[in-house]
Amino acid sequence: MKKISILGSTGSIGTQTLDIVAHDPERYKVVGLTAGANVELVIEQAKQFKPAIVSVASKTDADAIRPQLPAGTRVVYGEEGLIEVAAGTDADTVVTAIVGSRGLPATLAAINAGKTIGLANKETLVTAGHIVMERAKQRNVSILPIDSEHSAIFQCLNGENRQSIKQITLTASGGSFRDRSREQLEGVTVAEALNHPNWAMGAKITIDSATMVNKGLEVIEARWLFDVTYDQIDVIIHPESIIHSYVEFSDNSIIAQLGLPDMRVPIQYALSYPERNATPTNRLNLAEIGKLHFREMDFDRYPCLRLAFECGRQGQSAPAVFNAANEVAVARFLKGEITFLDIERILETVVSRHQASDLNDLQMIAEVDAWARRLAESV
Amino acid sequence: MKKISILGSTGSIGTQTLDIVAHDPERYKVVGLTAGANVELVIEQAKQFKPAIVSVASKTDADAIRPQLPAGTRVVYGEEGLIEVAAGTDADTVVTAIVGSRGLPATLAAINAGKTIGLANKETLVTAGHIVMERAKQRNVSILPIDSEHSAIFQCLNGENRQSIKQITLTASGGSFRDRSREQLEGVTVAEALNHPNWAMGAKITIDSATMVNKGLEVIEARWLFDVTYDQIDVIIHPESIIHSYVEFSDNSIIAQLGLPDMRVPIQYALSYPERNATPTNRLNLAEIGKLHFREMDFDRYPCLRLAFECGRQGQSAPAVFNAANEVAVARFLKGEITFLDIERILETVVSRHQASDLNDLQMIAEVDAWARRLAESV
Repeated sequence: MKKISILGSTGSIGTQTLDIVAHDPERYKVVGLTAGANVELVIEQAKQFKPAIVSVASKTDADAIRPQLPAGTRVVYGEEGLIEVAAGTDADTVVTAIVGSRGLPATLAAINAGKTIGLANKETLVTAGHIVMERAKQRNVSILPIDSEHSAIFQCLNGENRQSIKQITLTASGGSFRDRSREQLEGVTVAEALNHPNWAMGAKITIDSATMVNKGLEVIEARWLFDVTYDQIDVIIHPESIIHSYVEFSDNSIIAQLGLPDMRVPIQYALSYPERNATPTNRLNLAEIGKLHFREMDFDRYPCLRLAFECGRQGQSAPAVFNAANEVAVARFLKGEITFLDIERILETVVSRHQASDLNDLQMIAEVDAWARRLAESV
Repeated sequence: MKKISILGSTGSIGTQTLDIVAHDPERYKVVGLTAGANVELVIEQAKQFKPAIVSVASKTDADAIRPQLPAGTRVVYGEEGLIEVAAGTDADTVVTAIVGSRGLPATLAAINAGKTIGLANKETLVTAGHIVMERAKQRNVSILPIDSEHSAIFQCLNGENRQSIKQITLTASGGSFRDRSREQLEGVTVAEALNHPNWAMGAKITIDSATMVNKGLEVIEARWLFDVTYDQIDVIIHPESIIHSYVEFSDNSIIAQLGLPDMRVPIQYALSYPERNATPTNRLNLAEIGKLHFREMDFDRYPCLRLAFECGRQGQSAPAVFNAANEVAVARFLKGEITFLDIERILETVVSRHQASDLNDLQMIAEVDAWARRLAESV
């Protein structure tokens, strides 16, 4: 029986993780959940899975939901509550499915507590890859990726000598606007941007897919997860999202991971690793799919990806600034304050005004993050 | 330094194995070679690689080439010579690149001598899979596949629990006539049949690709190599031969191996396993390829593949009969004695007249093999 806490249980990854747990109740037990705004859903989840602890955003929310929770489920709240669910239970694995850079302190707390990490919060490695990977190594903690691309790479590296990696290629569907030119991006609406062709995901990551920022964050994440250089990471457009990513080895042999786009496969893999267990997903039939397409990444069409590579190569605080500015820009786009192309403009402006510096602790990260957010709000 | 003997050094796999050795002389040393008709080439090879022993077909050939070989290269011949190269040297790995069922005794001799087997002779497992795999297990000998499909599967299974295999899918290019209907196969010429779209291979295997017998032999080989049932083996048409084969696991995740069609990758892998070394091959660029196509195997279009599955499922002597009848039929086609479609007809006739029986030793295999050959010559 594996005990699991889920940070961000009401989001897309969180609910799908609970799907996996519900599908295999003899293998998995939920001990902790955290939620933000969606208190109704976390109440339901707590009733179904009877965790030992639930954390919500505020004391008000905590007081409001307490009477509706099962006996034996404790309620906590806020930043401290999140940390408590991450580190203060007897969970074996903590799934970090919170969106954004606020997942970082909780992830570090879970690592410090010796928990295996099912990492869906990519901003953790983007902003603090050097700190997180070093800490995980010290604590002998496994970081198991839940992103479909990184799970693919991780699966492709099974039983392989990592010294033999020649190149890692992340596949990109191209997002909601993959068939539009840059000119045709003028004036696109939020609703259009949220209509991803292959994956049903949260709003923020769907916008990030359309701008290719998501792939940029994944590139930086891959650099840390697999300890490769940026020259060893490539991105290719693959509209069908069937090949989830692949690794080329020193002998020119390529190992790829494939499947229908369904996050429950990488989620299950992170929970069951190194074993594989059945998932409640559909099987891929390549003959039914018929064709797979590939084309070179166009960095002029997707300047945010170029910027991500640049920030990654620059290192230090640059990726954190890139990420924070993007979080703000996407939020502003979703609120209707700015246009789709303004997201790129804001990113470029914030990054160009930033002087990269070392980031040695969470405090320094918080400061540079705040600086980037302030600027991204105002340009 | 790994010491290697090559059975069948002048054929397609043999020469490509020597290519790999020549590319990495500090890693590999050739200690034994065997050849058939092509004595000129084996002389050249012996001069270049200075093996301790060379075997040719006959005493006449042996006497003829002896004066032309390097000092220190001993010459032997015939069936005994083949066995001596397979088992009587200090080779670590024996590459069995002989075509046809006569590779079997030599392979067994090499296994008995404790050699790692680089298996390119698929008939070995088709005719005597139960004997060979059992012997390899007893002697704790690794059988490393050199076929591109089986090497792909083998690579996909790296670090995986074989209990988690749901399905193995072998990809098939469709061979020289993949775009022709059955009607259009009437009267095709030998030259047309030998023109494989993706792979430069020997004549026999090229014809076997066109009839899909080759895939049938691979299916049976896969059953033994990976200890799966026939229900767990699927075949799909993939004209580009880029995905060399793939494995679906219990979680519906698929791991595939890809590359440009170049046998030197699987050859190198069998020689360097479990490590990977650089190969003198070109890298695959999926964006350049652009599209990969897949379609369901059509068992009506390729009745020999259906027959192979039937013989495999029937077991006992049926696969050996299928294989022996095919060797004769292909030889007759290449000599111009029969038409392309006669190959199928002969296979079906011979298999239908055969009463399957247990095959417990090489003698029984030789008898059933001879029976099938006699019949295949006469129908």
